[in-house]
Amino acid sequence: MPSTRQFDPTFTPSVVNGMGPNTPERARVVLGSLIKHIHDFAREVELTSAEWMLGVEFINSIGQISTPIRNEGHRICDVIGLESLVDEIANKIITEDGISPTSNVILGPFWSPNAPFRALGDSIIQDPKPNGRVTFMHGAVKDMETGKPIVGAVLDIWQASSNGQYDFQDPTQTDNNLRGKFRTNEKGEFNWYCYHPTPYSLPTDGPAGVLLNLMDRSPMRPAHIHLMITHPEYATVINQIYPSDDPHLEIDSVFAVKDDLVVDFKPKTDDPKASLDLEYNVKMALKKHHPNPNSAPPVSSFERHAKAAKEAQAKAAMGKL
Amino acid sequence: MPSTRQFDPTFTPSVVNGMGPNTPERARVVLGSLIKHIHDFAREVELTSAEWMLGVEFINSIGQISTPIRNEGHRICDVIGLESLVDEIANKIITEDGISPTSNVILGPFWSPNAPFRALGDSIIQDPKPNGRVTFMHGAVKDMETGKPIVGAVLDIWQASSNGQYDFQDPTQTDNNLRGKFRTNEKGEFNWYCYHPTPYSLPTDGPAGVLLNLMDRSPMRPAHIHLMITHPEYATVINQIYPSDDPHLEIDSVFAVKDDLVVDFKPKTDDPKASLDLEYNVKMALKKHHPNPNSAPPVSSFERHAKAAKEAQAKAAMGKL
Repeated sequence: MPSTRQFDPTFTPSVVNGMGPNTPERARVVLGSLIKHIHDFAREVELTSAEWMLGVEFINSIGQISTPIRNEGHRICDVIGLESLVDEIANKIITEDGISPTSNVILGPFWSPNAPFRALGDSIIQDPKPNGRVTFMHGAVKDMETGKPIVGAVLDIWQASSNGQYDFQDPTQTDNNLRGKFRTNEKGEFNWYCYHPTPYSLPTDGPAGVLLNLMDRSPMRPAHIHLMITHPEYATVINQIYPSDDPHLEIDSVFAVKDDLVVDFKPKTDDPKASLDLEYNVKMALKKHHPNPNSAPPVSSFERHAKAAKEAQAKAAMGKL
Repeated sequence: MPSTRQFDPTFTPSVVNGMGPNTPERARVVLGSLIKHIHDFAREVELTSAEWMLGVEFINSIGQISTPIRNEGHRICDVIGLESLVDEIANKIITEDGISPTSNVILGPFWSPNAPFRALGDSIIQDPKPNGRVTFMHGAVKDMETGKPIVGAVLDIWQASSNGQYDFQDPTQTDNNLRGKFRTNEKGEFNWYCYHPTPYSLPTDGPAGVLLNLMDRSPMRPAHIHLMITHPEYATVINQIYPSDDPHLEIDSVFAVKDDLVVDFKPKTDDPKASLDLEYNVKMALKKHHPNPNSAPPVSSFERHAKAAKEAQAKAAMGKL
């Protein structure tokens, strides 16, 4: 619905060209494009003063509710699909022959760089919950072109507990509950025990809730298990896998469901430790196929969490003196 | 610098079309356009994960430093020219014959709806400063088409003191220092005493400072006096006037200088109360010429300030019980 009115065509260039000679070149490109698009948006919808001021107060409210363990700015980006898009830009791989590895999707705010290594066959369930459904998850990691097994790939898995909360959101969980790193064996295989994942709602008591409500959208995420799969010679795969019978696959509030990430949990009767079985196989691409081999490593909320925890600890220690 | 890579063309429509049937129509238009432009921006510059996360932390920092008397979200919009653009969209008037009234520019965050009415010839200087240069300001308000005087127009004036601070930023100033409302007489004329304005810097200890520094731009605003001129039959004029010898006219950090708002302060020798003379005349347009006659009234930081002041008062009163 582009506007039919004419506005001063020199205004946006004057703002962009206001950047001085010491602006780093990449900042000039990124901010120039951002300013141009924000101006184009405002002209296109003929944004009113009142609507603009609503936007200002909305932006202010994002930081005001954020804490070291609540990154509302990150969440808003997820709700408008921006993290998903940035992931596509950074990580989409397709060869000239049309071959792609297992899909990447968004990292989300709950990855921790400190998950412990565990032995194949171990469980990541440190704090069992009565309603958790234990799953034996297993599969192999292979080269997407040759089909050869990838030995020594590291699978870093993390998931929310059956209450929909991750360890550092929930005081009843111990550190690294439902987190673990596993290394593939000489056949490229892996296996462990985890939970069938539980769908959960994004927090709706802040700006993301306001926005989702205005857009008449569900705050639910389909149940999922997070994975980060790394190997020195291969492009990292960061994704999430979803039970095929989850009712929220089509309405994921953060746009992170892709067809090849939907999996079938099956009943398991031959293992006293698990009631469900999940086979999941991963295809990786050699690093040469990655569009941004030098792109920065993933960024996590963990540093924010660790800093806050350290400060709280220091405060408590001071109290004891 | 548009990207040459191809990305999934169905992704952005899937996000926009994720809005449910109960989304208000205007919200659908505004948010749909905003999401499309943000996605286009990310694809155009191939935004990296690290750059996106910098942006997330920047957005979070805006709200974290904001208070009832510091609206950093508003300030960031000013720095990228958005408030100036929204003002153009809302208020630009030009007739078919090419006639325009006195220019509008941004309201800024320091207008108060509660400035007192004062008599013509009065001074708005309640708290004199030794280095303030008193100015006798006078002129007339006329219809832009007929040139006839507009009787009973209200001129609401506000300005920073000689230290660059407005009353509610500065505990040494009394409420409504350097604020006042005046009504034009039967000849459409007005006059009062005020200060020659002082240039000042935007606060640079927050996100606006980070952004201006990255863009290698000055945080300075040229010296200015704010005016809001209203009359029941005419489109409101909200603007700022600037001394012609101010060195910051070309580098205003909020893009609010327009040619017809640059004025000449002249020495005055016949008035013991003032050392400078400023003649300033205003042309107004009948409301029928305004593109958005029903647009919302200006929004001010004052409500935020008043609310905080009331809460502080209540707290103090509780303390006395």
